[in-house]
Amino acid sequence: MRYIDLRSDTVTQPTEEMRKAMYKAELGDDVYGDDPTVNRLEELAAKMVGKEAALFIPSGTMGNQIAIMTHTKLGDEIIVGANSHIVKNEVGAAARLSGVSYSIVDNPDNRIYKEDVLKRIRGEDIHYPSTGLLCIENALADGTVVSLEEMEDLYQVAQKSHIPVHLDGARLFNAATYLKVGAKEIAQYTDSVTFCISKGLCSPVGSLLCGSKEFIKKARKMRKLLGGGMRQAGVLAASGIISLEKMVDRLEEDHENAKYLANRLNEIEGFFVDMDKVQINMVFCQIKIKDFNSHEFVQVLLEKGIKVNDDEDIIRFVTNNNVNRKDIDYAVDCIKKYVNKN
Amino acid sequence: MRYIDLRSDTVTQPTEEMRKAMYKAELGDDVYGDDPTVNRLEELAAKMVGKEAALFIPSGTMGNQIAIMTHTKLGDEIIVGANSHIVKNEVGAAARLSGVSYSIVDNPDNRIYKEDVLKRIRGEDIHYPSTGLLCIENALADGTVVSLEEMEDLYQVAQKSHIPVHLDGARLFNAATYLKVGAKEIAQYTDSVTFCISKGLCSPVGSLLCGSKEFIKKARKMRKLLGGGMRQAGVLAASGIISLEKMVDRLEEDHENAKYLANRLNEIEGFFVDMDKVQINMVFCQIKIKDFNSHEFVQVLLEKGIKVNDDEDIIRFVTNNNVNRKDIDYAVDCIKKYVNKN
Amino acid sequence: MRYIDLRSDTVTQPTEEMRKAMYKAELGDDVYGDDPTVNRLEELAAKMVGKEAALFIPSGTMGNQIAIMTHTKLGDEIIVGANSHIVKNEVGAAARLSGVSYSIVDNPDNRIYKEDVLKRIRGEDIHYPSTGLLCIENALADGTVVSLEEMEDLYQVAQKSHIPVHLDGARLFNAATYLKVGAKEIAQYTDSVTFCISKGLCSPVGSLLCGSKEFIKKARKMRKLLGGGMRQAGVLAASGIISLEKMVDRLEEDHENAKYLANRLNEIEGFFVDMDKVQINMVFCQIKIKDFNSHEFVQVLLEKGIKVNDDEDIIRFVTNNNVNRKDIDYAVDCIKKYVNKN
Amino acid sequence: MRYIDLRSDTVTQPTEEMRKAMYKAELGDDVYGDDPTVNRLEELAAKMVGKEAALFIPSGTMGNQIAIMTHTKLGDEIIVGANSHIVKNEVGAAARLSGVSYSIVDNPDNRIYKEDVLKRIRGEDIHYPSTGLLCIENALADGTVVSLEEMEDLYQVAQKSHIPVHLDGARLFNAATYLKVGAKEIAQYTDSVTFCISKGLCSPVGSLLCGSKEFIKKARKMRKLLGGGMRQAGVLAASGIISLEKMVDRLEEDHENAKYLANRLNEIEGFFVDMDKVQINMVFCQIKIKDFNSHEFVQVLLEKGIKVNDDEDIIRFVTNNNVNRKDIDYAVDCIKKYVNKN
Repeated sequence: MRYIDLRSDTVTQPTEEMRKAMYKAELGDDVYGDDPTVNRLEELAAKMVGKEAALFIPSGTMGNQIAIMTHTKLGDEIIVGANSHIVKNEVGAAARLSGVSYSIVDNPDNRIYKEDVLKRIRGEDIHYPSTGLLCIENALADGTVVSLEEMEDLYQVAQKSHIPVHLDGARLFNAATYLKVGAKEIAQYTDSVTFCISKGLCSPVGSLLCGSKEFIKKARKMRKLLGGGMRQAGVLAASGIISLEKMVDRLEEDHENAKYLANRLNEIEGFFVDMDKVQINMVFCQIKIKDFNSHEFVQVLLEKGIKVNDDEDIIRFVTNNNVNRKDIDYAVDCIKKYVNKN
Repeated sequence: MRYIDLRSDTVTQPTEEMRKAMYKAELGDDVYGDDPTVNRLEELAAKMVGKEAALFIPSGTMGNQIAIMTHTKLGDEIIVGANSHIVKNEVGAAARLSGVSYSIVDNPDNRIYKEDVLKRIRGEDIHYPSTGLLCIENALADGTVVSLEEMEDLYQVAQKSHIPVHLDGARLFNAATYLKVGAKEIAQYTDSVTFCISKGLCSPVGSLLCGSKEFIKKARKMRKLLGGGMRQAGVLAASGIISLEKMVDRLEEDHENAKYLANRLNEIEGFFVDMDKVQINMVFCQIKIKDFNSHEFVQVLLEKGIKVNDDEDIIRFVTNNNVNRKDIDYAVDCIKKYVNKN
Repeated sequence: MRYIDLRSDTVTQPTEEMRKAMYKAELGDDVYGDDPTVNRLEELAAKMVGKEAALFIPSGTMGNQIAIMTHTKLGDEIIVGANSHIVKNEVGAAARLSGVSYSIVDNPDNRIYKEDVLKRIRGEDIHYPSTGLLCIENALADGTVVSLEEMEDLYQVAQKSHIPVHLDGARLFNAATYLKVGAKEIAQYTDSVTFCISKGLCSPVGSLLCGSKEFIKKARKMRKLLGGGMRQAGVLAASGIISLEKMVDRLEEDHENAKYLANRLNEIEGFFVDMDKVQINMVFCQIKIKDFNSHEFVQVLLEKGIKVNDDEDIIRFVTNNNVNRKDIDYAVDCIKKYVNKN
Repeated sequence: MRYIDLRSDTVTQPTEEMRKAMYKAELGDDVYGDDPTVNRLEELAAKMVGKEAALFIPSGTMGNQIAIMTHTKLGDEIIVGANSHIVKNEVGAAARLSGVSYSIVDNPDNRIYKEDVLKRIRGEDIHYPSTGLLCIENALADGTVVSLEEMEDLYQVAQKSHIPVHLDGARLFNAATYLKVGAKEIAQYTDSVTFCISKGLCSPVGSLLCGSKEFIKKARKMRKLLGGGMRQAGVLAASGIISLEKMVDRLEEDHENAKYLANRLNEIEGFFVDMDKVQINMVFCQIKIKDFNSHEFVQVLLEKGIKVNDDEDIIRFVTNNNVNRKDIDYAVDCIKKYVNKN
C-alpha cells in the first residue's frame, strides 16, 4: 500500500534516477580516500556552499556533533537555541562527546539575536568556562527562515569575539529557496555548515559537513572516532550527487504545496495555520477543537492511507517529493470528514 | 591594616575559639576513616539537616559536582537555574565530570517552579536524554529565600517522576534563619544537600554534602576520584564543629546588619536597594548615577580600608562576622562622601 | 585500471547481485522503524549469531563503541588487548565516549586468557574503578582464531564476576569458517557481538551489533546519539542480506587463497610466513632483507597494478573476493622480480 | 591508646610546631588570591623544585589529575605505568575528567624506559589518538628510586616528540634524599611535578603542583572546576611551610629506620626483604609461611598496638615520624612471637 506520508521529509524515497546511479556507482574504500564517487560529492557540496572542503556523513546529527567536537575544547560552553535540534533531539550528545555545556537562548520565535550572543559570551574569570561556539539553524525547526541580514549580524558579533559559528542547515536549500539566494550566500556567514541530502533532496542516507580544509581534516578524524567512516560509501554518494544536481530546484514545488495545504487546512473549522510562518515545506497547524483526540485522529487517517505525526495541540505536516496536490486534496478531505463527524 | 570586607562572606576569618579547636584537634587518616574529628563533624551535620549521612568536602563546588556525579548517569539532562552557581560559577564542570546537559530554567526571579519542572521532564523518545536530576538553591544567589511550600511543591513533582532533588544550600542556615525553621525542615524536601561551614559560619575551609547512607557511600568514592579525599582533615573539621554548634544562631545578626546597611544605602542619592529582597546577609544595590565609574569607586573605598566588588550597575554588599554596625556606618559615610564629591 | 588490492578485505567491491538488490530495495525511514529491508537484515543477523536482536550500523568501530557505551557506566575499567582494534585503531574513542579506562592485557600472542581476566578484575576499594566489560576479538587482528574452549573459559570467568563480554567479530564468519562451526557457536560465549558485512562479505557499508533485546534497545539510542541512525538505510541492508545468505560459504576460498599466497611468498628469499598462523584470509610476511625499502616496494608494485600496505618489517596481505589465484601468481611474480633485482 | 602505625606515612600526625603555626596563621580568601600564607607556601614550593610557580591542592590525586587535565586535550593517549598511582589508585579519573586513554607500560620493575616511550608514541594516522603526556613516578610505589640519568633519558625522548612529562612525586623528597640531591635536580627533567606535604613531611593535608607560570594559571582554573579551591587555606599552608623548611632533612631518619626494620624482619623465619629495594621509607616483606593467615596476623598485632596493612603475600611496612627504633624493636618482637607460636 502506498501511503501519503506527511510526517516528515525524511521519509522521501529515492528517485529512479538515484537508484540507477547507486547501481552503477564507481566505488572504492573511502577510509583510504579511494572512493571516487564520495570524492566527487564532497567537492560538489563544498562548492555549492562556498567552503573549501566537505565531509560525507551518515546523518545530520553526526554532522552537528562532529562540528562541536572539532570547534570546541573540553569544558567549553556553546551558545544554542532552546528548541534547536542539538538541544532537543540529539540525545544530549554534546555534553557526552565534547564535554561542553549549553548556554541556552530561549526566545519565543526560536531565533538567536546578536544581543543574545553578546550577553552570553563569557569573559575571563576563574569561575567561567570559555565560550567555544555559536550554533544556529537555518531554516529553523519551526519552518521559518533567518534572513541574510540576521545571519551577517550574528557572524560579525561572533567573529569579533573569535567564536566560530556552526550552522545546522538540515534544510539549508529550503532556506536558500525561500530567500531566493544560493546556499553559499547563507553559508558565507558561518565557519561550518551541515546540510542533508536525505529529507527534501530525496537521497536515502546522508549529510555533508562543510568548512575550511583544516577544519574538515580534523572533522574526518572525529568521524572515524564516532564510527562514521564507511567503506564503499560511494553507493550513497552517487545518490547525493543527483540530490545536489537535480533536486534542489524542485524544492520550490514542496514550498508551494505547503502553502496550498496550509490554505486548505485553514478552511477547516478549528484548524489554524499562521500563513506568515509557512515559508518552506512545513505547515504547523494549531487545533482548537474541544476534546480533540490526536491518537484517534492519527489512527483514522492511517486507515485512509495518510500518515501524520501524533502531536498534541500543534500538528506538523511536511510536504515532500512523494506528495502531490491530489494527495493533499485527498488528505484534507479525509481530515474534514473526520472533524465534521466528531 | 584591617579591612572592612563587604565583598563576600567567604572572606570571614575563623574565631579564636575555632583556632584553638584546630590546634587541639584529635586527628587520624580520614581516607582510612580514622579521623575522629571528621567523623564527629559528619555525624553532627547529618543530624542537623535530617539526613542519614554526611561527607566533609573542601568546597561547595565539589559538593554540587559530587551530587551530580552520584545522582546521574552519563548523558542525562539536569534541570537547573540559568543563574545558579552550578551554571554560572563552576567552570562548566557538570558536562566535563558527568557528561550531563543543562535543561535551563530562566525566570526573572531566579526561581524554579513546579510548572518549569513539569515542562522540562523528558519522556521516552529515541531522540531524548533522560532527565536525571533537579538542582535548586536556597538561599538563592540573589539573596532571597525559597519558602517551604515552594520546596515541597518541587519535591513532590520530582518524586512523582522519580527524579532526585539536590539542594545547593551554600547558605542553607541563612535561609533557615530567615524562615525561622531548622535546616532540616528545608532539607526534608531534598535527596541531597550541600552547605558551607566557611561563609557566614566562619570556618576557614569546607562544606558538607548530606544524603542517604547509600548516596554518601557512592559520593565518598567520587570525592576520592576528584582528589578531595584529605588525610588529617580533622584540623578543618574541628572548626566546622564550632561553626555548627556556635555560629548558626548569630547569622541573625548578619541579616539585621544587612537590613541596616540597605536602609542606610537608600539614604544616598542614586543608590537603590529593594528592601523586600534583603532577606539574608546580602544587599544588592542598584546605582543610577550618570557616568558612575565603578573602578574608581572600588579604588577610593579600598584606600579608606573598605573592600567591595567591582560590579557594574548593581553592587553586591555582604555582611558577615567581621563587619559590625560601626563598620557599616563608616563605609556608608565614605560612600556618601565619594558620591557627593562626584 | 583494475588493481589487485591486497591491502585489506575492506576494499572488496559489491557483487552484481548486491548492486541489483540495492537498486530494487524496498525502503522506509529506519529512524521510525519503517524500513522493511533493514528490519529483515537485523532479524537475519540476530538469528545467525544466536542473539535476540541486532542493530545495523555504519561501521565496526561504531559497533564496538556502542557496545562499550551500552554495557558500561561512566568511570568503569574495561579489560582489552593491547593490540585490539579498540585500543589501536579507534582513535581512543572509549575514554571520550564512555569515560572508561583500559585495563590492558599485553600477551605476545595477542590473546586474553582467563588468568589475565582474573588478575584484572577489580575488587571493592575506594581507590578502584569497577571492572565493567571484557572485550575480546575473534578472529584476532593477527589473523589467528580463538578456539571455542578458550571462548568458553573466558565467558565463564566473566560471568562469575558479573562482567559482560563483548566480541569484536569484525571477521566472525572467517573465524567460524576456520573452526568449521556456525557463527552462533562462537557467539554463545558472549553478551554482545559485532560483525562486518563489508570486508570479506563484500557489502559496501555496514556492520551488525547483536545481543539481547534489552541491550539492543539501549544500543539503538546510543546509535542515534552518535549520529549513526540513517533514514532509508535499506539500500545498504539489501546488500547485507546477500552477504549473509550468499557470501559466507565462499570465505573458505579466501582462506585457501591465503594459504596459497603464503606458500608462494615462502619461496622468495628473505620472505618468511609462519604457516601455522595463516588461519583466515590474512598473511603476515616477515621481510628479512637488508636495507629493504618498503616505500619503494609499495611504489613498484603499484606501478604493476598491485596494492599492498606500506608496513615496515612485517607486511600484511589480505585475500578477498576480488583476488583470484591468477592474481596471486602475478603478484608473487612481480614481488620476486623486485627482490631479485635488488 | 597510642598505636605504632606502619601502614603508611599518610598517617603521620602534625608536630607541635605545625599545630602552633596553624593556630597563628595569617589568613585570607585564597580564591581571591588573598591568603598570604598560601602564597608563601606556593612560592617556597616552586623554589624548592625549581619551577616558576606552584599551586596548593588538597591531595596528590588532585595534583596528578589537574596535571593531566592541563597538559592534554580531549581524546589524547597518555603513557603511564601499569602499577602507577594514576592507573591503580585514582578511581579511573583520567578517562572521566580528561577523556584520555592509557598507553600502559607494564615492566616487571615498574619503571618506564625510553624505549617504552619511543614504542608508544603515536604517529599521524586517522585511526590513532595523539600521545599527549608521559606520566612517571619518583620514588616509585614499590619504594625504589629512579636515577637522574633515567629521568634525563625519558625527558629527552619526550621533548623530542613534544610530549610533556608529569612527575608524580608523592615522595619526591624521599627520592631526593636517597639520591643525595636537591628535589630540583630531579624536577628539572619534568614539565610538571606533584609532591605531598602530608606523608613523610607530616602536614595534615595537602600537596603542591608545580610548573611554569602559564601551566599553573591553567591548573588553577582546573582546581576550581574540581572544587579544590579553598577559602582560608592558609591554615593548612602554615603547616606546609614547616614541612618544607624543617621536615625534609629528617626523612633520612625514616630511611635508616626502614633499613633497620628490614634487617630485623629478615631475622624472622619465612620473612624475606630484598635489601636492595629498601631505598626510602618502605619495606616490602615477602611471607613464605604455609597457610599464613594475614587477617589473623593483622588482628593479633592490632591487639598489641601495632597497625599493619592486610596484604596477602607481600606486606608493606612504612616508617615515619611517629615510629622510632624502640617501636620497631617492639613490633618485630611481637611479629616474632606470633610467627613462632604458629
